[in-house]
Amino acid sequence: MTDHLKEETIHTEGIYKGRIIDLEKHTVRLPNGSESKREIVRHPGAVGVICVRNGKLILVYQFRKALGKVIAEIPAGKLDEGESPEICAARELEEETGIKAGSCKFLCSFYTSPGFADELVHIYIADELESGHKSADEDEFVEVVEVSLDEAAAFIQDGTIHDAKTMYAVQYLQLQQK
Amino acid sequence: MTDHLKEETIHTEGIYKGRIIDLEKHTVRLPNGSESKREIVRHPGAVGVICVRNGKLILVYQFRKALGKVIAEIPAGKLDEGESPEICAARELEEETGIKAGSCKFLCSFYTSPGFADELVHIYIADELESGHKSADEDEFVEVVEVSLDEAAAFIQDGTIHDAKTMYAVQYLQLQQK
Repeated sequence: MTDHLKEETIHTEGIYKGRIIDLEKHTVRLPNGSESKREIVRHPGAVGVICVRNGKLILVYQFRKALGKVIAEIPAGKLDEGESPEICAARELEEETGIKAGSCKFLCSFYTSPGFADELVHIYIADELESGHKSADEDEFVEVVEVSLDEAAAFIQDGTIHDAKTMYAVQYLQLQQK
Repeated sequence: MTDHLKEETIHTEGIYKGRIIDLEKHTVRLPNGSESKREIVRHPGAVGVICVRNGKLILVYQFRKALGKVIAEIPAGKLDEGESPEICAARELEEETGIKAGSCKFLCSFYTSPGFADELVHIYIADELESGHKSADEDEFVEVVEVSLDEAAAFIQDGTIHDAKTMYAVQYLQLQQK
């Protein structure tokens, strides 16, 4: 039905192959026949985990170099090669917070920046919580903080929570509460 | 309070300067003193517009080369140099849908991919709607579709709506309705 909006690939140029992302430049044929360029970031995909314990949402403070500041996010991380999002969700939650989830239920997935990147984030809800072992990656420094929904709303107001997946998660919990 | 999580920049290398995004590689000093690399995409920022007319949410179908498929999104676009997000919101809405908004009210902003990009999306709510002039960019092909909230929920289920800002917008409207 929307096939007439498609762009055909004429040429793909690899610009950069990195540790986490790759950059490509595509020459495309537009629906009107003319040519254009598209800059595209390839990303392995990621998970975000909504974990509520004793009525508090579990967040982690993390310095984000791209933003130059620390923000509080739901536990999250990128997929290892060949790893299923469900396994990744439980792994990242335990690594970053020390909370072990007996089950992680899929909620939804979304592309974060469809204009220039293929990053797909899968959101899971952690359940059957017990104590596990915190063991962040060697180049990852995070600190756990637990907030009520009111505190989360205040974090959004003051910019402590400032990313799409965490603001989506807070909205999701507000919707459940109503 | 969270200053001890900060990473110091040791070196910044420009990898690519593009039409929409730039890519940099930062060498950083981690909190534990060791070094690591961060790949960072620079983006000018963008807006997304929640526009409800006669009880229907206004979306646009657009082919996203990064995803290789058409998805339905709230009207959106990147900031022109020096442009305020509020002006950009009204401009993008009119260009993509032909709807002119007498006012655009700021709702929130979020970073889409804090792990590797500085893209900040500002969400506005369009009001005082009247007819304007559709005039998409020369390399942008979009098609308007109007959906009820139930139809939007079905679009999320079948993957027609599949990006963070639009899923945030749908949840926001669901929350208003309750």
